[in-house]
Parts: sequence; C-alpha cells; structure tokens
Amino acid sequence: MITNHELYRHLAQKNDNKIVLLVLDGLGGLPLTPNGPTELEAAFTPHMDRLAREGSCGRAIPVRPGITPGSGPAHLSLFSYDPVQHDIGRGVLEALGIGFDLGPDDLAARGNFATVDENGLVIDRRAGRISTEECIRLTKKLQENTSLSDEGYEVFVLPVKEHRFVLVVRGPGLGGQLTETDPLVTGKPPLPVQDESGTPEGEHTARLINQWIEQARNVLADEPRANSLNLRGLAKEPGLPKFPELYKMRAAAIAVYPMYKGVARLVGMEVIDFDGDRPHHEIEALARVWDDYDFFFVHIKKTDSYGEDGDFEAKMREIEAVDQVLPQLLNLDPAVLIITGDHSTPAKLRNHSYHPVPTLFWGQDVMPDGALIFGERASERGALGVFHATAIVPWAMGYAGRLARYGA
Amino acid sequence: MITNHELYRHLAQKNDNKIVLLVLDGLGGLPLTPNGPTELEAAFTPHMDRLAREGSCGRAIPVRPGITPGSGPAHLSLFSYDPVQHDIGRGVLEALGIGFDLGPDDLAARGNFATVDENGLVIDRRAGRISTEECIRLTKKLQENTSLSDEGYEVFVLPVKEHRFVLVVRGPGLGGQLTETDPLVTGKPPLPVQDESGTPEGEHTARLINQWIEQARNVLADEPRANSLNLRGLAKEPGLPKFPELYKMRAAAIAVYPMYKGVARLVGMEVIDFDGDRPHHEIEALARVWDDYDFFFVHIKKTDSYGEDGDFEAKMREIEAVDQVLPQLLNLDPAVLIITGDHSTPAKLRNHSYHPVPTLFWGQDVMPDGALIFGERASERGALGVFHATAIVPWAMGYAGRLARYGA
Repeated sequence: MITNHELYRHLAQKNDNKIVLLVLDGLGGLPLTPNGPTELEAAFTPHMDRLAREGSCGRAIPVRPGITPGSGPAHLSLFSYDPVQHDIGRGVLEALGIGFDLGPDDLAARGNFATVDENGLVIDRRAGRISTEECIRLTKKLQENTSLSDEGYEVFVLPVKEHRFVLVVRGPGLGGQLTETDPLVTGKPPLPVQDESGTPEGEHTARLINQWIEQARNVLADEPRANSLNLRGLAKEPGLPKFPELYKMRAAAIAVYPMYKGVARLVGMEVIDFDGDRPHHEIEALARVWDDYDFFFVHIKKTDSYGEDGDFEAKMREIEAVDQVLPQLLNLDPAVLIITGDHSTPAKLRNHSYHPVPTLFWGQDVMPDGALIFGERASERGALGVFHATAIVPWAMGYAGRLARYGA
Repeated sequence: MITNHELYRHLAQKNDNKIVLLVLDGLGGLPLTPNGPTELEAAFTPHMDRLAREGSCGRAIPVRPGITPGSGPAHLSLFSYDPVQHDIGRGVLEALGIGFDLGPDDLAARGNFATVDENGLVIDRRAGRISTEECIRLTKKLQENTSLSDEGYEVFVLPVKEHRFVLVVRGPGLGGQLTETDPLVTGKPPLPVQDESGTPEGEHTARLINQWIEQARNVLADEPRANSLNLRGLAKEPGLPKFPELYKMRAAAIAVYPMYKGVARLVGMEVIDFDGDRPHHEIEALARVWDDYDFFFVHIKKTDSYGEDGDFEAKMREIEAVDQVLPQLLNLDPAVLIITGDHSTPAKLRNHSYHPVPTLFWGQDVMPDGALIFGERASERGALGVFHATAIVPWAMGYAGRLARYGA
C-alpha cells in the first residue's frame, strides 16, 4: 500500500507560488431556525464572497462522518495527517497546549492531582478541583523535589489549570505502550504504569515513570487535598513525517494560542513570533515573513470561542473582522488561498461539532463553480464536493503547480 | 491501521436519543425520459419533502462505484459493515433468505439439484429447473435419509425455490476455506469439496461435507431428473462484530421478508414479530417496541419488487404509502430519522442497479441544506454529498449526540 504521503512526497516540486491556509477555528455553523442563515452566511463578507465567486468551494470532514474532533486532531487533518492513523497522546497535546517545546526525546503525560485516603484509595480523582494557583505551587514543589537525573533523564512538571498538569521526561530510549494510572473510579488505588508493547524500551520507560510517581507521591503526602496524582495519555512526541520535507515547502505558522503553535511545530512548521492578538496583527506578521516561506498557516481562534459561548452575533462579527483584513492578505499576492475551519462550532450547539466545514479555494487556476457567496449552503454545491480535510493541502498544491504529473 | 469500527466503538456513548433507519428497498430510480421525474420525484410525498427541507440529503453508494449489490451486501453496508471486507457466504445468505435461524456453530451451503449421466458427468446443472414442489419433496427425502449424527453433527436440508436448496451442518469445530463442487460446465463430473485454508478444522469439515454429499447422491440416484446435486458458497456464519456492542445501541429490526430479518439478526439486531405486511403495520410494530430500543431498522420491501417488475407507477404508489405513515412515525419523536434505500431498482431497468441512493437525514441538529423535495436530483445537491452507505449509521449517531469528541 502506497500512502498518500508517500505519493505526494514523490510528486512535490518547488516553485515560487505561495499558499496561505487561513483557518477560522470552528468556522462551520448552523442556522438558528430552519430557513435562517448560519453565522458565516449571516456575516457581511464582501471579500470572501468575491473569492467564492472566483474560486471553488466544498465541505471538509475533519475526521470521519459523525465524529466531532478536538482541536489537535482537527488541525492534524488540515495539515494532511489523518488523525486516526497518526494518533497523538493526550499528554503530548496537553504539553503543546501550554506551549511546551516538545522534542523527539520527550515523553509527555497528562497529570491529574488527586486525593487518596489513609489506605491509598482514590477518594477524589480531581483533588477537589484545586485552584490554578494551587496547581502552580504544587507543580513547582514537584519540579524542585523530584528527579530522574541519576538515571540520566530530565524531568519537567508544568501547571495547566486547576487539578491538571503536564509531566515531560526527556532522555534517550523512551517508548512503549504505556497504561494509565487513573483507576477511573473512586475507592480504588491508583494503578502502576505498565508497558503493553513488550519491548525493552517500554519496560524501561514504565519502570522510570513508576519511580518518578513514587517520588512525587511522597512529596505530595502532606498536602491536605492534592496528596496524590495520576498520569494519563503517556506517549512520546509521535515523530510525524515533517510537512516541509513531505511537500518541499518551507512552512510558517501564525497563531495566537499555544495549542495551535504546538501542533504546527509537531509537523515541522516554524512558529512566527508577533505582538497582538487580532486578525490584523496576524496579517502584519504574515507580511513580515512573506519572503521566507512557501506555505503559511494562519489561525484565528475567536470564531471557535464565540461559538462555544453560544454567541452567534459575536462569531459572525469575528468572521467579518477576518473579512476586513483579506485585502491586506491578497496584496501579498498568494498563488492559492484556502479559507476553512478545523471543525464546526455552531453557536446553536455551544460546542464543536461533526458538521462538514465550508471550505474555499481561490487562485488563478481554481475552477469558478457558481457559488455566489461563501457559506455552508453555497459550499454544498461547490466544485469539490465533500472531502476529507486531509485533501486540502494536496488540492492547494495542485492549484499552485506544486505537484508534478503522475506517470507518463 | 485502526478500522472505522474500532474508532466508532471507542467513541460510542449512550443517551436517550432514538434513531430510525427507514429503508425503502430499491428506492433509487431513473426517469423514463431524460426530462422526466424518477419514481421518488414523481411520488406525492408531502411529508418526505418537508423533512428534506428541514434536513440534509446526500446519495449513498452501497458497495463501490458502478457496483450493483444484492440485498444481503447492500443491507450490511447500510448497517455500517463494508460488504467487501465482511464477505458473507452465499450459503449463509440463502439460509437467511429462507428465514433459517443460523447460529455460530452452523456451516451453510447453497445447494443446486443437478442431473448426471451414467458416467457421473453433469448434463444439467439445474436438473431441468424442477418445480418448487419437487424441490420440497426432494429436500424432505434428503432430510429423512441422510445424517451426520454418527460424527456428532446435525444436518438441515431446506427447500428454496426450483432446483435450489440450503444445507446447514451444525456442530463444533467447523470451518476452513471450502471449494465448491459445481464444475460450472456440463460434461464434467462434480468436484469434491476441498479445504484451502490448510487448517485441521478445514480438512475435517471438507471430509464431513463430502461424506454427506456421497449419502445424498445415493439417496437421489433413482430420481429421473434431480439425480445429483452440487454445493456452492460453503461458509460459516461470519461472526460479525455485533451492532449493539459496536454502537452501544439496542437495535430492533422490523421487516416483513425473511432475508432482511436474517441480515439484521446476523449483526445482532433483535427481530420484532408482528402481523400484517403493509407500512402501517410496520409503524404500529415500531410504536409497540419504541421504549425498548435505541435504534430501529424498518424495511419496506415492495418498492424493490415493483421496480423489478418494471412498474414505475406501482413503485411510486408504494413510496406514497410510506409517506402517508410518516406522521405516525414522527409522533414517536425520533431524534434522528434516515430515509434511504439499500440500492436503486429503477423500474426502467427492471433490476437492482449501482446508481447512488437518495438519502435523507432529519433531526434537530441536522443542517437544512436547501433541498425543496426528497428526490434524486435534490439529493445530488445535498449537504452530505456522495458517500459510502457505511457512513449512514455514523452520521446518524453524530446527529443524535451518540459519539464522544475525538481527542482534545
């Protein structure tokens, strides 16, 4: 079986055509009434509408039919990595989410502070949802009083939020298929980490992590509430094939939130630093580095946040704010511009959803498909139909002339 | 490689939302003239049309592009089992088709009565297409005069139609990859059953079946026409992953014809008994068991039968009869309703066909996609595009909130 990545790697060719992947997080929406518009349809978006008239639309399925994705898998898919086949541990996502610069020698776990009774049985799996300040104090205490340096490993203990933290162990020869310690119900003791891969490195890693856990529980023993902890989703940085090597494109990521920078870094994109958090700040950053890259991932967060708030109006306004900066983006003269979302977040549902995401491709050789505006229903009748989100980058490379002919 | 079943099994979650899969067998049609309507488009279906305006449409490919399915594989696909990957032996389908309650210890074969000459060479592979009455007499004769009880096995010989019958052998340790006995041309002798799996149980099973064949041919030797037989499609009940376990939904099947009950039973659905054979009888049965299940497969047969008769008008009227019972169905308050077919049976072709099947999803969180009626051409512009029929159950589960978020 030849994978798509192998195929595209073989066909990828360099040229001067630049591609911009503009992701409005949670872009897809739903009408509040059957005949009403979605957030995107209701928004006044003259520039997007012009691009839709000149380009091709379609709808992207982030993971599989009916499946609502988290942000990590949804972005992997946009970057052309099927998240089902390239599973990323929860610990890795959590580490990326707090901006930790995860390397190939790192194993990450999601940690939960917990409360155990005098017999070591878990009585609160979330340690009473301690405050984030407490979490910061406790992770500092663990960072200072635990160590695997005798074994040749570095340890990082980092706060996330409330009872959640991240553990990263860095050093050679980590790996395996590691089980979680959380018994998932109260009244039971935490479980030891076990290796299910049967490899020497898995066994070694399980022993190492259990050793750290023992130290950590001793350090926490005198705490009133967070007197224990559990580790979940223990996994290494997944070692994905790197986007710039796969596609022969230097790739830059422009995003405000750590999670999105993290996933971009995971596939080998370079994360661009900039000040400010509004769409125009992101376009200014894009302009600044325009000459240095071939592919640009630009991430807008607030569309998703407002969708999760159930705020139809604010999500609509944020889409309009993005529309207003499109002329500056187009002034840079991209060969291909994609506007899409990582998933839908309809204000109606106040949540991520499984609905296919309206997606627009614009560029000189894109087929104008008769869409009059950019919106869910116009995209349904678009030239590209309903496709898996992993097809977005390949389509864009085709439009940009960056894929050689296949066969004679 | 993680399969879709593994993925969905992992994400499936229980709630109180009920899903109805209403299958009009052979629903898809063709216009009799290029500008004319299809059967579904011509039918007066005010309720389906309203659901189409409120819901999402698309078109389902039952097996693969261009492939015309039989009813067995087509229904497997509707139930989310790719029939190419979950091959079911012809013997099993034939046994299901006559309503035989196949168990996990059963091996089934499709039998054909045949005529051989004095040298044992096949001269008529269908024994002159003997009458069904003859078939009943002959299977009774075989049932009474053959046996594998010395070996610890039960044997069932059951009539199907004309020269066709079913053999079921029941007992422990059956299996293997068994070849067929039919030489497929006249003038050759029947072949022995051979095992191609190389397993001890395959070898054992081949020996057992050959022993039965020898007995059976002796019993038939004095018959004027059906003086021999051949066995085809020898296979065990395939042991499919069970629908209720995969999807955490108690599933009920409401169907008139044995074949459809059989395929539903094969995937672990419970078959509901009821009197009558019209759509309103089926909806009454649905109402009766409504509280006891989460997922309901309701099968309407006659649309297909009329399509095979080439009776455009009667097929259209049957679609209208189903439309008329929709209010009773909707009164039950399903969270998600799917209306589709297992395949197309255009009256124009008088046969099953490969044309994608118009499919309608209705429910509170379904995107209203601008379709004004339920029909082939409206579905072509629907929100869900063209998809494999195995995506239908997952889409419905998404709409019903029965799939947990994938990843963080």
